Amino acid sequence: MRIAAFRRAHFNAAHRLFNPAWSEEKNQEVFGLCNNPNYHGHNYEVEVKVIGETDPETGYLIDLKDLKQIIYEEVEQRFDHKNLNLDTEAFKNLNPTAEHICFVIWQLLRARLDDRYELVVRLYETPRNYVEYPA
Amino acid sequence: MRIAAFRRAHFNAAHRLFNPAWSEEKNQEVFGLCNNPNYHGHNYEVEVKVIGETDPETGYLIDLKDLKQIIYEEVEQRFDHKNLNLDTEAFKNLNPTAEHICFVIWQLLRARLDDRYELVVRLYETPRNYVEYPA
Amino acid sequence: MRIAAFRRAHFNAAHRLFNPAWSEEKNQEVFGLCNNPNYHGHNYEVEVKVIGETDPETGYLIDLKDLKQIIYEEVEQRFDHKNLNLDTEAFKNLNPTAEHICFVIWQLLRARLDDRYELVVRLYETPRNYVEYPA
Amino acid sequence: MRIAAFRRAHFNAAHRLFNPAWSEEKNQEVFGLCNNPNYHGHNYEVEVKVIGETDPETGYLIDLKDLKQIIYEEVEQRFDHKNLNLDTEAFKNLNPTAEHICFVIWQLLRARLDDRYELVVRLYETPRNYVEYPA
Amino acid sequence: MRIAAFRRAHFNAAHRLFNPAWSEEKNQEVFGLCNNPNYHGHNYEVEVKVIGETDPETGYLIDLKDLKQIIYEEVEQRFDHKNLNLDTEAFKNLNPTAEHICFVIWQLLRARLDDRYELVVRLYETPRNYVEYPA
Amino acid sequence: MRIAAFRRAHFNAAHRLFNPAWSEEKNQEVFGLCNNPNYHGHNYEVEVKVIGETDPETGYLIDLKDLKQIIYEEVEQRFDHKNLNLDTEAFKNLNPTAEHICFVIWQLLRARLDDRYELVVRLYETPRNYVEYPA
Repeated sequence: MRIAAFRRAHFNAAHRLFNPAWSEEKNQEVFGLCNNPNYHGHNYEVEVKVIGETDPETGYLIDLKDLKQIIYEEVEQRFDHKNLNLDTEAFKNLNPTAEHICFVIWQLLRARLDDRYELVVRLYETPRNYVEYPA
Repeated sequence: MRIAAFRRAHFNAAHRLFNPAWSEEKNQEVFGLCNNPNYHGHNYEVEVKVIGETDPETGYLIDLKDLKQIIYEEVEQRFDHKNLNLDTEAFKNLNPTAEHICFVIWQLLRARLDDRYELVVRLYETPRNYVEYPA
Repeated sequence: MRIAAFRRAHFNAAHRLFNPAWSEEKNQEVFGLCNNPNYHGHNYEVEVKVIGETDPETGYLIDLKDLKQIIYEEVEQRFDHKNLNLDTEAFKNLNPTAEHICFVIWQLLRARLDDRYELVVRLYETPRNYVEYPA
Repeated sequence: MRIAAFRRAHFNAAHRLFNPAWSEEKNQEVFGLCNNPNYHGHNYEVEVKVIGETDPETGYLIDLKDLKQIIYEEVEQRFDHKNLNLDTEAFKNLNPTAEHICFVIWQLLRARLDDRYELVVRLYETPRNYVEYPA
Repeated sequence: MRIAAFRRAHFNAAHRLFNPAWSEEKNQEVFGLCNNPNYHGHNYEVEVKVIGETDPETGYLIDLKDLKQIIYEEVEQRFDHKNLNLDTEAFKNLNPTAEHICFVIWQLLRARLDDRYELVVRLYETPRNYVEYPA
Repeated sequence: MRIAAFRRAHFNAAHRLFNPAWSEEKNQEVFGLCNNPNYHGHNYEVEVKVIGETDPETGYLIDLKDLKQIIYEEVEQRFDHKNLNLDTEAFKNLNPTAEHICFVIWQLLRARLDDRYELVVRLYETPRNYVEYPA
């Protein structure tokens, strides 16, 4: 029985969007308010979708307590109350757009999940702006 | 014109997770708090997704009043304010995990819907834990 | 890196469901309360999903400020605080069911988006009734 | 034990704001888009707050099933899928602003509730605009 | 500077409404579905409101991490994944209506909070049914 | 007719909590993760409640388009996509706790509103942590 299970988590972080290969003017033109050199921030909301076959003994696709713990270790501990640009390895040299944050989270969780699971990550930057990987 | 239409409903029920083939200790180890022999409960939220071709005369994929009535008869009347383990046929011998409840609801609704419709059911156990069948 | 980005918007509009080829009785029978000749209304919520490859220079799939502006011009300006049946070209001769409104919005946005993007539109008529095109 | 109990309901209606004592220009200037002569509409959400003493035998302030039924009879049956200006007695000669709709609902429910209860009504016109009576 | 601070938490529990002084028939008549002898359940959501003067040194009314911990110890540990009627001291002899649960939570938190704070507790049994003490 | 009208808005900002009169250790002990010297951030949600008498000619307590504009000028333009500690006058010398931000917003809006209105501001730092002034 192929099914999907979802778990949501969140973290609060600061970030700034810019491309170091560009001039200040070009960064300002492309990223606008998001380019503020003093940073701004968000309540990021993460929806993790795992797909696979239900275990006939437990009736679980995956123990959501385990998934919650993995998300805590890989996402919340790493990013919560951090400045993504300054405080994290992942975004030292990667522009922390929602797209990139979503992809980095997908990679971190992918490395922790058994191969029998497919994985999709949705990241809400605000309730009106969000992304999902893979599409 | 192939489109999807969604209808949401909810029900409040008690349940307990356990596998009768296992010892009490193993049940406790695997299901933890969800194994409480006196039950606990949830406000389950159901999202029913129907996919097919729009009727050119009505402009409807399906009359959502009809879908609402089918969900009422098959899901709400059957499960609302019930103990899933004790009060329902479906879970007399099936562990009422979110995965199994979602699949049972899918079967109940599938039997009531015309073959020209595809069906996907999402079941929220809490706003942070949910499942979807088929994946 | 293939990804999806979402933007939400809303508009408040009046509408009435009916098929001019039918008798008053048949319209009443099929569309019930939604056939009220004096109209009723909704807070429509639109979720626009764009799919494609992230731009390596910006880290964006699409600049959501641009997408917000396109939705404003094509959807909000056209439909907000309007009577869909009387005030809009799109529904002069098309029954404004959620399915049709969703498809019309998809067409309007499709015409404004670059071919490298796929597009999916979800339209909420209420928090419990909604549709998505394409399915 | 003095406590408050709340029940929510909703209705979908069309309306138009205008003052018949004013010129078309003044109405347009004051009410803007809300003055559209062909109407627009909303998903109105009503929160009914009842205050009083808990009954020691039932442990209820008020049976919420009864309150739900009163709201259904007085608010949903009267206003759902209606044009407030054309289809209702209450707004034949009263501008259907959120403030006035809230007050009318308060009066309708007040007449149905026992004197031992205080009553407060909150009306959401959209998730971002709402009113509450009495203040 | 007199201000209010709020913290939300939740717990999932089973319960059954009945008055042991009444006949089965009367219990059924008054409490209806909520009287199911095999229990049903809810995702209870608790909103704790604390009122007082901001501390000039911290700029906090109360450290919400402390409040979160108190709510965890007094409410979540006590009630989460429990059968309120069978597994808790508080409702051994008290009908677990939303009103009573709210009042019990208020008493438990009141005993843990400094006298300089006022306290109001709101308890959501469902998103549409909730209570608040004191009113 | 005394009534309340509400308008919601939001802004995304970075901040850091600390008291410059304290040692680094004491700041870390009291403010924990919120003391990160590189900042973190939030999607702040503001609910503005205005109380007064309805205007008999318009049926409005206050034109919510005007209130929306005042909130835009005083709150969104000032704080959106800013670092509260570095980019704003208000928090140059005031610790940007939710309590202080709420009070500052209340002062800014109070100065723009007619004396016949009472004003209450609620500020959500996250959906689970929020404050309200005055209490």
